[in-house]
Amino acid sequence: MRIVFIFLISLFVAGQLHSQTSKDSLMFKRIADLVLSNGKAYENLRFLCKQVGPRLSGSPQAEKAVKETLRMMKEMGADTVYLQPCMVPHWVRGAKENAVLVNAGGQSIPLNVCALGNSVGTGKAGIKAEVIEVRSFKQLDSLGEKGVKGKIVFYNFPMNPTYIETFRAYGEAGQFRGRGPSMAAKYGALGVMVRSLASNIDDFPHTGATTYNDSFPKIPAIAVSTRHAEYVSNELKKKNGLQLYFRTECEMLPDVQSYNVVGEIRGTEFPDEVITVGGHLDSWDLAEGAHDDGAGCVQSMEVINVYKKSGIKPKRTIRVVMFMNEENGLRGGRKYAEVAKAENKKFIFALESDAGGFTPRAFGFSIGGDTLTRLRNWVPLFKPYGVYEFSEGGGGADIGPLRPLGTLLCGFRPDSQRYFDHHHAANDTFEWVSKRELELGALNMVLLLYVVDQYGL
Amino acid sequence: MRIVFIFLISLFVAGQLHSQTSKDSLMFKRIADLVLSNGKAYENLRFLCKQVGPRLSGSPQAEKAVKETLRMMKEMGADTVYLQPCMVPHWVRGAKENAVLVNAGGQSIPLNVCALGNSVGTGKAGIKAEVIEVRSFKQLDSLGEKGVKGKIVFYNFPMNPTYIETFRAYGEAGQFRGRGPSMAAKYGALGVMVRSLASNIDDFPHTGATTYNDSFPKIPAIAVSTRHAEYVSNELKKKNGLQLYFRTECEMLPDVQSYNVVGEIRGTEFPDEVITVGGHLDSWDLAEGAHDDGAGCVQSMEVINVYKKSGIKPKRTIRVVMFMNEENGLRGGRKYAEVAKAENKKFIFALESDAGGFTPRAFGFSIGGDTLTRLRNWVPLFKPYGVYEFSEGGGGADIGPLRPLGTLLCGFRPDSQRYFDHHHAANDTFEWVSKRELELGALNMVLLLYVVDQYGL
Repeated sequence: MRIVFIFLISLFVAGQLHSQTSKDSLMFKRIADLVLSNGKAYENLRFLCKQVGPRLSGSPQAEKAVKETLRMMKEMGADTVYLQPCMVPHWVRGAKENAVLVNAGGQSIPLNVCALGNSVGTGKAGIKAEVIEVRSFKQLDSLGEKGVKGKIVFYNFPMNPTYIETFRAYGEAGQFRGRGPSMAAKYGALGVMVRSLASNIDDFPHTGATTYNDSFPKIPAIAVSTRHAEYVSNELKKKNGLQLYFRTECEMLPDVQSYNVVGEIRGTEFPDEVITVGGHLDSWDLAEGAHDDGAGCVQSMEVINVYKKSGIKPKRTIRVVMFMNEENGLRGGRKYAEVAKAENKKFIFALESDAGGFTPRAFGFSIGGDTLTRLRNWVPLFKPYGVYEFSEGGGGADIGPLRPLGTLLCGFRPDSQRYFDHHHAANDTFEWVSKRELELGALNMVLLLYVVDQYGL
Repeated sequence: MRIVFIFLISLFVAGQLHSQTSKDSLMFKRIADLVLSNGKAYENLRFLCKQVGPRLSGSPQAEKAVKETLRMMKEMGADTVYLQPCMVPHWVRGAKENAVLVNAGGQSIPLNVCALGNSVGTGKAGIKAEVIEVRSFKQLDSLGEKGVKGKIVFYNFPMNPTYIETFRAYGEAGQFRGRGPSMAAKYGALGVMVRSLASNIDDFPHTGATTYNDSFPKIPAIAVSTRHAEYVSNELKKKNGLQLYFRTECEMLPDVQSYNVVGEIRGTEFPDEVITVGGHLDSWDLAEGAHDDGAGCVQSMEVINVYKKSGIKPKRTIRVVMFMNEENGLRGGRKYAEVAKAENKKFIFALESDAGGFTPRAFGFSIGGDTLTRLRNWVPLFKPYGVYEFSEGGGGADIGPLRPLGTLLCGFRPDSQRYFDHHHAANDTFEWVSKRELELGALNMVLLLYVVDQYGL
């Protein structure tokens, strides 16, 4: 009797689960169809890239981006849209950079370079010195002051092509852009040239933030295109006494007022439980910031489009955030967490898209163990839309500061193969974003928010 | 005692399996590293696109492509490289097409069009007639001779954006390009204009083969860009008596001699068991055929590069085939199977890559049941390289004719989102292929051939 009872109960539970799953599956299809046939992400991205353009923190275009995304979220019907003030650094590139490799005979070969973000400039006269190539900090240390003083250090560490995840290679090679200038300054270098963080050999210099260590002099730093990094390296193997001349007129100005832009859909059952989704609104000054991170911005805003057009009402409050200043300060992300901490709400979940508008593959979560195992029950629902993995480890720069609030963090993980062809370079433009890939990313993000909102964590 | 024995046996088997898996996993890494750091696919593709160019069957460039891929496979060290003669159709486009929409006031609006492959031309005078839009064959049937005779039929069936797999939408919309002209001719239409088979709204007309039914007159057929398809459709809603004029000077010439190009690595243990891998060498005349199917060609040839550079010796014979004339005749695929049938060998497996050089997702197999279940044990080995699924249903146009020989067929399935932005259009160029995505596809193909060769089916 008892066994029969358990059997019946099991049948009932299985039936319930099955009917829930097929209900979810129908809702997933409804959301996906809406994004793919009536989405706004692509047109919003076109506007952000072509009508606003490059939008480095502190620039007039960044201000324009704030106004325009505020308007977009209003027009899509968010319940509340508001600005969250934060001060941001104001670094400017100034006149276009100039660099040449000078051989012993005085011949000059022009190189494709750009100043690293936050770098000091050389001033109008520029700097000229012997150039030495290093491939590791260990090598730099062994050269010491004797080998480095008065010279220009050329960090030539390629992104490892054998890593399947390009972000892994970026992380490894990125230390030279970040810490390289101060490490070289420690030994008396006059300046630094870093091989661009790009997956392939091409002609674009890729900028990105460098971080000075206040213990050492701030010396000027530039990035060189991968093709010219190879060229300089080959020349150095063949010739002695090669000199590098470069001129940069960049400088850091006083902080200016800027804003995060927040759009909200209020929860019907648990309005004090907040689900955050966002990308960063600022971009580097060299390009339109299409993949980095216009894509993440318009994908996040798509949540409002879907909820409002479909009439689905979230149980919990969904906040769409356009974070300011991810690229060279993270002031927006910090400000958002600071304000959140002061609010009397539960910030249960945050999702960030800042890995480009490419075809979806996975979501990465800041948590493992039982919670992740439970969340993974949702994966079969996502698989028809291209996401086949919920992996451990994830989040994002802008939502990272929410961690102390106990927020479960999640990063959208699109395919990473093409990201570093465009990242921080002049070719990060709208033309290189596929409408369908962008939309597939957007719809998977909405799907994830939908289940988190419906079922909690 | 018996239980202890079974337990020990299980441990032993598990240990064997585990050590086999980790051995395979090391070999996979070795193959992947080789392709990603020392691959030839990208440079070969550049050559095929930029030095050979568009290579429609019967053209001088198709002849050049035969010579150059023969050279490439020789240089990569294939044991044997040879040509397999086959006669191919020789369709030529002639002078650039011209089409205008003419309104009642006589105003002409130029449209972006191209002739469909295999279509007859209009002759120099062109044709001019009232244009009627239809969205289904049913609608055409209901119009009948009364509604169609003497007119130009405009098939305006968009690819369904809500299908996640774009090939599904292509299959559905493709019938109008294939059968549309003859279906319209049946009712006395003078000509046909088909909406381009493209996922998005843009300005490129996409060509592709049409297939005449000999029971009806052959009437000229063109494709119009999706943007102009939308435009014409909107105009037709607003205005009466719109006429279409178009001129095409294409024609079908007598068949010419051409070739499949075959490169072979001989098997060391079972030389009479043949594994075939290939792509098609011909392309449409409008573009470089980078994704369709330069990518499949250079990925297939990469097998030779890997086996020869790594010193791995296959147990079975591997044949790399550059199939001629997939686009408008399939003569190469048929010839290969015909020759295979006459050989005293077992054609156990064939893999085709003809879905673009995009990031890998899956392999599709012509078989299900136990065999597929067994093959799926390999999937975990592939997952780190981006392939997470072995699905039922697959193969390819060129390897299809091998089916009667009992060959297990398999199609490489990269991500399909961007394919129909470029397919059969002038922007199917080298610039739109990502080096890393192309290589990831190539390496997964080599990995699959490796396990099939090592363990059989």
